[in-house]
Amino acid sequence: MIEAPYLLFLGDAPDMLAAKVAIGIKDWRPEIAKAQFRLPGCNADLGLPDMTMAEAAAAGIKTVVIGVANRGGHISSEWIAALKGALDAGMDIASGLHNLLSDEGELVAAAQMHGATLHDVRIPSVSYPIANGKKRSGKRVLAVGTDCSVGKMYTAIAMEREMRQRGHKATFRATGQTGILITGGGIPLDAVIADFMAGAVEYLTPENDDDHWDIIEGQGSLFHPSYSGVTMALIHGGQPDALILAHEPTRTHMRGLPHQPVPEIEDLREMALKLAHVVNPDCVVAGVSVNTAAFSEEEAIAYLTALEDRLNLPCVDPFRQGAARLVDALEHV
Amino acid sequence: MIEAPYLLFLGDAPDMLAAKVAIGIKDWRPEIAKAQFRLPGCNADLGLPDMTMAEAAAAGIKTVVIGVANRGGHISSEWIAALKGALDAGMDIASGLHNLLSDEGELVAAAQMHGATLHDVRIPSVSYPIANGKKRSGKRVLAVGTDCSVGKMYTAIAMEREMRQRGHKATFRATGQTGILITGGGIPLDAVIADFMAGAVEYLTPENDDDHWDIIEGQGSLFHPSYSGVTMALIHGGQPDALILAHEPTRTHMRGLPHQPVPEIEDLREMALKLAHVVNPDCVVAGVSVNTAAFSEEEAIAYLTALEDRLNLPCVDPFRQGAARLVDALEHV
Repeated sequence: MIEAPYLLFLGDAPDMLAAKVAIGIKDWRPEIAKAQFRLPGCNADLGLPDMTMAEAAAAGIKTVVIGVANRGGHISSEWIAALKGALDAGMDIASGLHNLLSDEGELVAAAQMHGATLHDVRIPSVSYPIANGKKRSGKRVLAVGTDCSVGKMYTAIAMEREMRQRGHKATFRATGQTGILITGGGIPLDAVIADFMAGAVEYLTPENDDDHWDIIEGQGSLFHPSYSGVTMALIHGGQPDALILAHEPTRTHMRGLPHQPVPEIEDLREMALKLAHVVNPDCVVAGVSVNTAAFSEEEAIAYLTALEDRLNLPCVDPFRQGAARLVDALEHV
Repeated sequence: MIEAPYLLFLGDAPDMLAAKVAIGIKDWRPEIAKAQFRLPGCNADLGLPDMTMAEAAAAGIKTVVIGVANRGGHISSEWIAALKGALDAGMDIASGLHNLLSDEGELVAAAQMHGATLHDVRIPSVSYPIANGKKRSGKRVLAVGTDCSVGKMYTAIAMEREMRQRGHKATFRATGQTGILITGGGIPLDAVIADFMAGAVEYLTPENDDDHWDIIEGQGSLFHPSYSGVTMALIHGGQPDALILAHEPTRTHMRGLPHQPVPEIEDLREMALKLAHVVNPDCVVAGVSVNTAAFSEEEAIAYLTALEDRLNLPCVDPFRQGAARLVDALEHV
């Protein structure tokens, strides 16, 4: 687990888009996003207090979280100097960058000297077991998409917020780097070795109270040839009681694959449910989450209404409308 | 690639069962299985000439292949001494053991001194790409099972032999450790990182002549919760034109999971074909391979005849009957 509270490191972010991870942390875990750190040339601003490393440590901040992509794919000397300052001040660092903190000799040495931890959340830090497929107590819901990057993480974390606001026991279970940094824990599923994928998901979603919901972050798509094996492991390791279908209606082909058609939502419903029944015969499809960002408000409502008639399931855009109706649907599962 | 011919290292195998890998190499690649090496106490015998390391090297043997499981899960000092002798004599070593040759300091040092190669086929030796799902030339067939360990490798390699005897262009593509040692190349799919599984299968089965068949070794099962993601990557990375269903009719539960029921062959047919159509809409199910080892000859024939009526597909046990009818079925694909 990554220790909170966080100082969000924005580095020399060229724009707000580059600070996507930091924005996610601030939006979803405002209680732990205490301050931001910016280098000269930074064009991102989260509206949080700017702090130096020394100020952050003095304010009780435990971890500097890199909330920005690194320009040019390498960790610059300006970044290294600032991050070394974080370790010198007694804080840990957490990163989801492809370049690992643990490959930077200066940071490794400073961390050792100060007894600090470098969290590289892109790679697994534990040896996961092989899945056993045994029925576990507690309830689980998983978002599965017609494609990658259609809003599965947003849907899951919005559902967690809604359920907690209702006083339900609910835990968002992160399976990707951004989700891990937002919540401080999880599994980097795309970096797990094939034989242990489903076991990692079982490890992430252990036995729990009968009325507790794990809301598992989805990855990939059963219909995306590059990543479908990861999605499969989520379904069989996650043992879901309910599935949420996630869809982006303007996609003309699968992400990154111009030749690969997007499936119909009905195809996803049928396929995902059949696969889920292998580990849980009682699994149901509870609702549909649609990313309508490309539509006007009016277009979005028209699309969702028509889709709801077509599928006979609650169809909502949780960004526009909140996740309440998806959570309502879980009350009966 | 592992250089042939081979000296098959049987070590101190307690019985023939422990020498499964060596038996596979001798059965399927007799032309490269030149000799065997046995330590005192070895109770396995392949009927090949016994050679010392020096004799093997003098006879032109290039690689010592460990064809036996190691007792107690560690590489003993007797093994190390013998294997060091192989390197001293100028040969390479190939192993599919969980304990890696490259973790044995003495062997690493000797290999460096002699410019020899230690092949640990249990771990990937190349960085595989992310799959792109683009249509490739050439034809591919994949065996998918109702469960793990139902004869998928045997089926594939028997089909390769039959196709080559008919003068067809065919290549068995190994995806597991035993298959890699038998053929000298392949991918250890269960040890590949999740994001690269399907890409590894694409790498293994590249574009080829229009009349060339890749016969891809299957792994796991879509219905086995521990390994289904690996099977999924084989289907989407392998882009099969034809599927062979593999089944073991006396299995009462999924291998290693007493609570997990075995699917009907019809369920496998429907599920696997739908998933294959995501990457190749023309894929067909060509036949069924049944492991009838638990049946008498009469029982086996009765079972296969009834199954063939039920499924309207050629149903054969390639161990009893050869793979001819499965290969016949591919002629029309």
